Amino acid sequence: MKPQLSERVKKRDFPGEFLEVILSAASDPSTISFAGGLPNPTTLPVEEVSEASKKVFEKFGYVALQYSQAQGFLPLRQKIADRYKKTMGIEYSADDIIITAGSQQALDLVAASLVDPGDEIVVENPSYLAALQVFHHYDPKVLTVDLNEDGLDVEQLVELLKDHNPKFMYIIPNFQNPTGLTYKEETRAALAEALKGTDTVLLEDNPYGELRFTGKSGNSLAYYLGEQCCALGTFSKIVSPGMRIGWIACPNKELRDKLVMYKSALDLHTNIFGQMLMDQYLEDNDLDEQIRKAAAVYGEKANRMMACMEKYLPEGVEFTRPEGGMFLWVTLPEGVKAVDVQNAALKRKVAVVAGDPFYEYERDVRTMRINYSNSSDEQMEEGMKILGEVMAEYIK
Amino acid sequence: MKPQLSERVKKRDFPGEFLEVILSAASDPSTISFAGGLPNPTTLPVEEVSEASKKVFEKFGYVALQYSQAQGFLPLRQKIADRYKKTMGIEYSADDIIITAGSQQALDLVAASLVDPGDEIVVENPSYLAALQVFHHYDPKVLTVDLNEDGLDVEQLVELLKDHNPKFMYIIPNFQNPTGLTYKEETRAALAEALKGTDTVLLEDNPYGELRFTGKSGNSLAYYLGEQCCALGTFSKIVSPGMRIGWIACPNKELRDKLVMYKSALDLHTNIFGQMLMDQYLEDNDLDEQIRKAAAVYGEKANRMMACMEKYLPEGVEFTRPEGGMFLWVTLPEGVKAVDVQNAALKRKVAVVAGDPFYEYERDVRTMRINYSNSSDEQMEEGMKILGEVMAEYIK
Repeated sequence: MKPQLSERVKKRDFPGEFLEVILSAASDPSTISFAGGLPNPTTLPVEEVSEASKKVFEKFGYVALQYSQAQGFLPLRQKIADRYKKTMGIEYSADDIIITAGSQQALDLVAASLVDPGDEIVVENPSYLAALQVFHHYDPKVLTVDLNEDGLDVEQLVELLKDHNPKFMYIIPNFQNPTGLTYKEETRAALAEALKGTDTVLLEDNPYGELRFTGKSGNSLAYYLGEQCCALGTFSKIVSPGMRIGWIACPNKELRDKLVMYKSALDLHTNIFGQMLMDQYLEDNDLDEQIRKAAAVYGEKANRMMACMEKYLPEGVEFTRPEGGMFLWVTLPEGVKAVDVQNAALKRKVAVVAGDPFYEYERDVRTMRINYSNSSDEQMEEGMKILGEVMAEYIK
Repeated sequence: MKPQLSERVKKRDFPGEFLEVILSAASDPSTISFAGGLPNPTTLPVEEVSEASKKVFEKFGYVALQYSQAQGFLPLRQKIADRYKKTMGIEYSADDIIITAGSQQALDLVAASLVDPGDEIVVENPSYLAALQVFHHYDPKVLTVDLNEDGLDVEQLVELLKDHNPKFMYIIPNFQNPTGLTYKEETRAALAEALKGTDTVLLEDNPYGELRFTGKSGNSLAYYLGEQCCALGTFSKIVSPGMRIGWIACPNKELRDKLVMYKSALDLHTNIFGQMLMDQYLEDNDLDEQIRKAAAVYGEKANRMMACMEKYLPEGVEFTRPEGGMFLWVTLPEGVKAVDVQNAALKRKVAVVAGDPFYEYERDVRTMRINYSNSSDEQMEEGMKILGEVMAEYIK
């Protein structure tokens, strides 16, 4: 039998294939990997979650194993709503929150609920590669707006909106993946101004926002746009990625009802034991303290990585200086292809990701993403030394 | 803002909406519900899973909270493969198995990977309503084949295949949802014969197969069709539905690679802690014994329910006699609409599901589904008495 595959999966999945090659090479234990985006194991609260798991069975018994509701566990949704109020001053009710299998599933739900083939969407240039991947399942026309030092090039967006009416715009305004950039407050306000009055949903992804180790947080776009904003969140980077618990804050009832019904058809609901476990963890622990500890680790890692980069990378190589999150964005001198450096570094057992899969259209770019969250000091020192030597070979 | 919804979610979701109304009415604690399909709480191994959860953290530490692989936890995939060998004599390798968020997600993955708009698929008439729901996301042309006392009307299928080349055929050969019917062995062999040589994937769903309380199991279609069969399975009905752990056994590498990549873009992977927990549970407990206990409960429940039905339902009302699973299928006399009986019964606080949402095309049918897995003896007695009275009003 030859399965008659759909066009959807027959299309070349450029970001998926690209990343697969890198991550599979990086999984060799003798390779130093700056390629992934894994939380540092020391930041994962194993004991606390283990304690919480005992309580869940005592408290809920068989209910922790039984079928549950598509929208998610109510006490957990309430805690998420409360936290928006506390940390950002945004008023959501538990009813506005939908629990998803990580924020990755939230990307799928929103795209499925808004995009027909050929519909326009807007993404940052460059953007998170697994978002590009899942959006492509719905065959959209992808428009892009460049990032700059202020975050987003809002003028470009204003121009674009004159001739286009996108279904949604997808942004990561804090410690963006891949660039590590953060939008200035003026950029946020101007972006909101540009979108107001349109029927374009602003899809704000914010996996790293709380992992700030220096500087001051900006407002969520929900602050400016109210129900025109769908705010995504996740416990992946602050408590546990493996648990796959994220959420959508969607105060627009029409869209929310569709998201919940669609979610229900996809997987009925997210693992209820996992949701209760996360809720119990939040009940018994100080999440702010947990985040402070994780952010401190990442601040130290970022500084160490930047010191290594200054020490070992050749002149003419530039990189962003993140205030939080997990990534640095490197720009090589004119004429050097990041993918060449990436491949040569891999041969010497150092994995980085060339920028290519993060761009919707550009190829053979001279940017690359460096993850600093998951390496030891020794690995940074050794890995950057090798990466510097490899780069030097390509910089004439 | 008015969200610009996709055609996919704007379409009327008949089964979804139908079920929502019933289940929401049934959630009133004063209602006796034969409407759902929940495992009986007494069959859920709470203590054993709780024990397993302690071990997982001791054994794996932070790895239980970290990101993992899209295809699923290898030891669990190995156990699933081994179980096919042991219980059905089918040889799968761990590599053939993909872990999914319940078998509901498996339905989505297979449909997404095979169906473009307008492509033909074949389903049983009637079929599992949440399968119809998720298949409709991909806008297929749905062909149907009637069920009969032998299982499926294979002659009808043979006729259909003369003019059609469906992407896949979806069946539930054991204790079918909604009818409770089981395919005879000759039906399985003839069905396989009809499909052999075509490029139609046979998607075999089997959530209830092991919950047999009388009679002898038939062969999986994988036994006859090899890699032309994608066999779905789940721990939902035998260990825990809330954990959302199911699988696809897909020995066809071309299709499997696409399923894994698609799954990875949807939610990266299924909750790794949940997978480890299930694996540990299987390591420490005798699943056969757990299944025997659950099946015994359901056998008793089914007998009790059938006794109540014989006692209380008016003459002319017929029902299937299941050998396993969770459902009975009732046929009312000519001229009586099941949906009228359903609505009148709901007013008297008894919930059943009229057959309508299980049919792709037929409406105002005279069949209804009765669940017996989750009611007490008193509820059966009282509920069937009321249902009998309601039916009598509609039977002239």
